[in-house]
Amino acid sequence: MLSCTAYAASAADAKFAPFTFERRDPGPRDVAIDIQYCGVCHSDLHTARGEWHGTTYPCVPGHEIVGTVREIGSEVTRFAVGDRVGVGCMVDSCRSCEACRDGLEQYCIGPATFTYNSPDKVSGGNTYGGYSQHITVDQDFVVRISHDGDLAAVAPLLCAGITTYSPLAHWKVGPGQKVGVVGLGGLGHMGVKIASAMGAEVFLITTSPGKAADAERLGAKGVIISKDEADMKAHAGSFHFILDTVSAKHDLNAYFDLLKRDGVMVQVGVPPMPLPIEVGRLIFGRKTFAGSLIGGIAETQEMLDFCAKHGITADIEMLPIEKIDDGYERMLASDVKYRFVIDIAAGLPKAA
Amino acid sequence: MLSCTAYAASAADAKFAPFTFERRDPGPRDVAIDIQYCGVCHSDLHTARGEWHGTTYPCVPGHEIVGTVREIGSEVTRFAVGDRVGVGCMVDSCRSCEACRDGLEQYCIGPATFTYNSPDKVSGGNTYGGYSQHITVDQDFVVRISHDGDLAAVAPLLCAGITTYSPLAHWKVGPGQKVGVVGLGGLGHMGVKIASAMGAEVFLITTSPGKAADAERLGAKGVIISKDEADMKAHAGSFHFILDTVSAKHDLNAYFDLLKRDGVMVQVGVPPMPLPIEVGRLIFGRKTFAGSLIGGIAETQEMLDFCAKHGITADIEMLPIEKIDDGYERMLASDVKYRFVIDIAAGLPKAA
Repeated sequence: MLSCTAYAASAADAKFAPFTFERRDPGPRDVAIDIQYCGVCHSDLHTARGEWHGTTYPCVPGHEIVGTVREIGSEVTRFAVGDRVGVGCMVDSCRSCEACRDGLEQYCIGPATFTYNSPDKVSGGNTYGGYSQHITVDQDFVVRISHDGDLAAVAPLLCAGITTYSPLAHWKVGPGQKVGVVGLGGLGHMGVKIASAMGAEVFLITTSPGKAADAERLGAKGVIISKDEADMKAHAGSFHFILDTVSAKHDLNAYFDLLKRDGVMVQVGVPPMPLPIEVGRLIFGRKTFAGSLIGGIAETQEMLDFCAKHGITADIEMLPIEKIDDGYERMLASDVKYRFVIDIAAGLPKAA
Repeated sequence: MLSCTAYAASAADAKFAPFTFERRDPGPRDVAIDIQYCGVCHSDLHTARGEWHGTTYPCVPGHEIVGTVREIGSEVTRFAVGDRVGVGCMVDSCRSCEACRDGLEQYCIGPATFTYNSPDKVSGGNTYGGYSQHITVDQDFVVRISHDGDLAAVAPLLCAGITTYSPLAHWKVGPGQKVGVVGLGGLGHMGVKIASAMGAEVFLITTSPGKAADAERLGAKGVIISKDEADMKAHAGSFHFILDTVSAKHDLNAYFDLLKRDGVMVQVGVPPMPLPIEVGRLIFGRKTFAGSLIGGIAETQEMLDFCAKHGITADIEMLPIEKIDDGYERMLASDVKYRFVIDIAAGLPKAA
């Protein structure tokens, strides 16, 4: 066992504080990773603050992990010491259900073992995430990073990247298509970059006129202000696909009218309350509303390779690990462009 | 011009009464049809009573029309005098938009000319439907009926049949799939018959235990009582496809849990109010909720041929034309198994 220092929330209303626990020694198929950077996802905040219920404390969030392989188990074939690797939202799954067999471990009926706040079937207890010095993960849930240079801006791809890439790829977004991305936050800014790189003509759909310049810099062809009825009307019936990244309460119905016949709108943010849908807006046009959850491991590798090839990383701001609580407050105020990343190696000096 | 006797509603709160108007003489591409039977759809009721707004009076409903060709225009190639034919929900469309080019005239952006209560681009005025002696329709909007014997039970296929066939065919329902049909009315009973004939294992999902025997007679393998939590739980995550035919207010969320990963639920009844959707139930399983509107003309022909081949017609009760108002009241009380059909030829003797 190897001692591991982390930052943990000890209760829903507690501030983050240093916390030490033990990670397992690498088993035959395990990869031990020194964590270099960890992105900060809204899920971290919801979990740490007990907003989704079922949080086990102490809670060490973090599922946008990048780092370097320190040690490998005897049967590990896919990674070598020194490799630059990533770990996303999952560290294990049942390996036998239909979803696992299809490479869609995120839908494992087991369910999957999530990177934090999940029963750990290997080590027992509860999983601890990436706000920590190091992590030990089965090689099947480790992905390779082929981006050059510093990895800080790669970290958010492990959740924000795959969550947007997966539906864009599944519904075959590409050249000749007009694609809308609702919301320009951690997820939305990745959606704009990835959909643009896939060859689609991308429009940001937002309530904030101030985001136009940024959206265009990120690859959008234009911006639609959803509160502007004339603007919405001008684009009615023109979108093949809309990716809705907003998890706050909002009116979906106007977006359905932006879709062409047989158009698809996919929600990736999880609104905490039911949203009223005017079903007639789907019927007149055979339109589809669907949901999508992160992505499978093979697809995460595919996304990382795609992003490396197209030079895509996240737009980030570094957050010192002792400032996590402040970072959460700024995230709630949408005061980050567009993802905080913690420099773990700087904040939590390497274990002996 | 040929005089045509019909039954019409002269106002939202008026009872049906005889009404005479003129149909155009057949143009070069027109087919003049003596109407034999006309099914009674809930849309007829909503339109006649002004419940969808925009009703022009007098209103002659009816879009489940079967009859015999009386006369054809000089350029008509697809039909001959004496042919048994049908007319469904549309009698014309723009012919040039993307939907029309794709054979999905129901989504014509023109929009399509509906069989009743629609501006008539050929004859001027307002279209009058099948509660009438005869009708003149462009051959492109006439379908051929190959069923043997009496046509009364074929009439409802022109709306209830195609409305359920179209989504089942579009989403490729077939052998090896478990398919749910929500509601056992005019649409639902056709959905059970057609999905079963397509080779799927069909379950009726209903609030009424009393419908079990009927559902099984129509081809269902079983019945799920949606108010029975244990029953719903036993079938959780098992359905490939669910066709929801209920247009009254109802809770969709429990049905999403019946779907497998990547499962699809399609709504064909138009609920008049927004329905609250718990989006997380779609996200965890990449599930799809979609709408579908009737079907295109080529697909209507395909449906009729499919039904003829599989011996499928509607379960009907004959309704004398002078009893339309009584029929509507019984429909509102769900007191019909499962579709009223008017014997037009008996109630409105043939024009000279």
